[in-house]
Amino acid sequence: FFAASTVPLAKTDAWPKDVGILALEVYFPAQYVDQTELEKYDSVEAGKYTVGLGQTQMGFCSVQEDINSLCLTVVQRLMERTKLPWDNVGRLEVGTETIIDKSKAVKTVLMELFQDSGNTDIEGIDTTNACYGGTASLFNAANWVESSSWDGLRGTHMENAYDFYKPHLASEYPVVDGKLSILCYLRALDRCYAFYRKKIQNQWKQAGIERSFTLDDFQFMIFHTPFCKLVQKSVARLMFNDFLSANSDVQNSRYKGLEAFRDLKLEDTYFNKEVEKAFQKASLDTFNQKTKSSLNLSTLNGNTYTSSLYGCLASLLSQHTAQQLAGTRIGAFSYGSGLAASLFSIQVSQDATPGSPLDKLVSSVSDLPKRLASRKCVSPEEFSEVMLQREKYSHEVNFSPPGDINSLFPGTWYLEQVDGMHRRKYARRPL
Amino acid sequence: FFAASTVPLAKTDAWPKDVGILALEVYFPAQYVDQTELEKYDSVEAGKYTVGLGQTQMGFCSVQEDINSLCLTVVQRLMERTKLPWDNVGRLEVGTETIIDKSKAVKTVLMELFQDSGNTDIEGIDTTNACYGGTASLFNAANWVESSSWDGLRGTHMENAYDFYKPHLASEYPVVDGKLSILCYLRALDRCYAFYRKKIQNQWKQAGIERSFTLDDFQFMIFHTPFCKLVQKSVARLMFNDFLSANSDVQNSRYKGLEAFRDLKLEDTYFNKEVEKAFQKASLDTFNQKTKSSLNLSTLNGNTYTSSLYGCLASLLSQHTAQQLAGTRIGAFSYGSGLAASLFSIQVSQDATPGSPLDKLVSSVSDLPKRLASRKCVSPEEFSEVMLQREKYSHEVNFSPPGDINSLFPGTWYLEQVDGMHRRKYARRPL
Repeated sequence: FFAASTVPLAKTDAWPKDVGILALEVYFPAQYVDQTELEKYDSVEAGKYTVGLGQTQMGFCSVQEDINSLCLTVVQRLMERTKLPWDNVGRLEVGTETIIDKSKAVKTVLMELFQDSGNTDIEGIDTTNACYGGTASLFNAANWVESSSWDGLRGTHMENAYDFYKPHLASEYPVVDGKLSILCYLRALDRCYAFYRKKIQNQWKQAGIERSFTLDDFQFMIFHTPFCKLVQKSVARLMFNDFLSANSDVQNSRYKGLEAFRDLKLEDTYFNKEVEKAFQKASLDTFNQKTKSSLNLSTLNGNTYTSSLYGCLASLLSQHTAQQLAGTRIGAFSYGSGLAASLFSIQVSQDATPGSPLDKLVSSVSDLPKRLASRKCVSPEEFSEVMLQREKYSHEVNFSPPGDINSLFPGTWYLEQVDGMHRRKYARRPL
Repeated sequence: FFAASTVPLAKTDAWPKDVGILALEVYFPAQYVDQTELEKYDSVEAGKYTVGLGQTQMGFCSVQEDINSLCLTVVQRLMERTKLPWDNVGRLEVGTETIIDKSKAVKTVLMELFQDSGNTDIEGIDTTNACYGGTASLFNAANWVESSSWDGLRGTHMENAYDFYKPHLASEYPVVDGKLSILCYLRALDRCYAFYRKKIQNQWKQAGIERSFTLDDFQFMIFHTPFCKLVQKSVARLMFNDFLSANSDVQNSRYKGLEAFRDLKLEDTYFNKEVEKAFQKASLDTFNQKTKSSLNLSTLNGNTYTSSLYGCLASLLSQHTAQQLAGTRIGAFSYGSGLAASLFSIQVSQDATPGSPLDKLVSSVSDLPKRLASRKCVSPEEFSEVMLQREKYSHEVNFSPPGDINSLFPGTWYLEQVDGMHRRKYARRPL
């Protein structure tokens, strides 16, 4: 197991030179089995492992170790040996093919190590494909150092949490602690917004502008949407953030009627119903103007998990003209349980003329409302039946999924067959 | 579900401007269930879903669809609608939290779509953490466009293969087609090497140098190592590649005695024993000089999967001085079944003086042989016992793993406890 540390030697608006590996840390288990002995024990011909495979000793892990513990060890050793301060890390990637949980990344567990330093603004997450994950991680880390993202204007918050996870590997269903998940989501939003504001205000300061960043600086705001009501709470929450960091003059003018909440702390108010209600009311116009149009797809289709935030983006784009969007800044909050979250902004280009990239982008999603309207409504009975079928067939072999392919939209790929070796074959319904 | 296409407007040695999203494609199922109806069906209070969650309709997939089919649909639609040629794609990322296979990435299945174009040199793989994977993918793709990796000197080959995969989600063991896996590995090596040589030769040409790239241009070569013998075959294979692309004069001089193989084709020789034997003999010195020292860790510890290639790098570094390594180019071949492979090079810095980054890097792994020698040898019986324990405890809850923590190296993290909710707690053996 390895960790690669890549740092730039200089940072201008050109690529830093000589981005690379500055230290390596290798961990292996403290015990091994001799392969000549194992050949005898396994009753195979002498030399099968030692000559045929070129293997003389083989290390192995006991039940005391798993992918999380291995990564904890290697990251901590690397940090200790290089004496790199924990708050100097801006990116950490995990490449693995050993999965304990289908949803919660190993990276989130590693955030435990950074807890004392207070550093939670660390990009990078798990990357997987058999033995290729390590290389993909290395490439991603090096690209990040070379890109403008390095110390760029994104606010990220990652921590080790068990709010929603999938430890039952053979099941399609997660384990969810609903209340904790909402707390984690809103706390991550607070943290990401704080990081984001700090970075942008620092940048402004360097340009001679000294003022606070507020929600007003986003013309639109989109959010990861497990359910729509949480997004409305989130807009209110961001306004609460703005309110708490405003001076009393601004609190008295801009946030009239909310002064009673000025001595509250963010961390004490995640389930404070009065705060929620008051700021939801105060932010209603903001929500309606900046966010509501992004929720159309979620309202009509539900939680799409990983793609949720980008479904909101598509929804927003589909309900505005290129002219309305041109030059705006869209705030975007991405959240994945476990947890990993980022708040970043999408700067919409200025040019809205026909044939411009923006015009083409808007066109690419303009049929969204029409396509949503063309879906078939089925009864709850039929829906429940399909859910049962999904459970029944999820790990089936030697089968072709039942169902009429004409019920799919034209041009849709579908699972045609799973053979006895779990190999999956797909076909496409003609356009 | 979404796909984001990011392309640079210009490429110099500075960051391209305005890297971003040029088109979006959204797919949702063709059927939905009305949430007022579902409230009645589920016997919950009216408004629980429609008002409480803000959900009016909910789409759902039938058994005919899975994460692979959804991604196939969205990528194909995006390509068709944007009319982007299939061979113009240099990177494709998948962000998902829906796993069908623990090892084989969704990305590898998508390579089916690119088959007719012949484009297999497409970087990017699966990125996972609950709902955050999409955002991590978007960041990675944008960073890649901004970095020097964009059309850089790496050769990548990805295709949809079932050589080694993990469809049994609750099991720690893979499904392996051993012969196919070796074929896939060697074919990917051929393809990556061809891409890599072509790119570097083009670069040389622009600098006025017209010659073939050969193995001689790597001072060292490291490989993903499922077992050591495959690496020796791989060095022979690369020499066979060099031989086939050399002109007959070079074949007669540099590769004396191998002329009989000059009319063979790469694709016909994956299991040709004569070719293997002849080129293994011819490349023995090359193997001993350039690769053998990288196999020390693998020989003594076994296949470490995702970290294998980087274990080889550490091994190589631990057996040479900074002076021996300075200024060399290390060829590196990464392979992950399913499949994804890249051949790239690591340029070692020139400065080997004490305290230089290279000196520190070499120091960071210098204790590897000593640490390997300090491991405990256990009997095959004990090894088998531990393997059975791993199976038994792999999905256990409410337990503390048995075993003596003093058997771990000092400073090692270990699994202390798994509670009834599958939450995992780790502790560290003191240094």
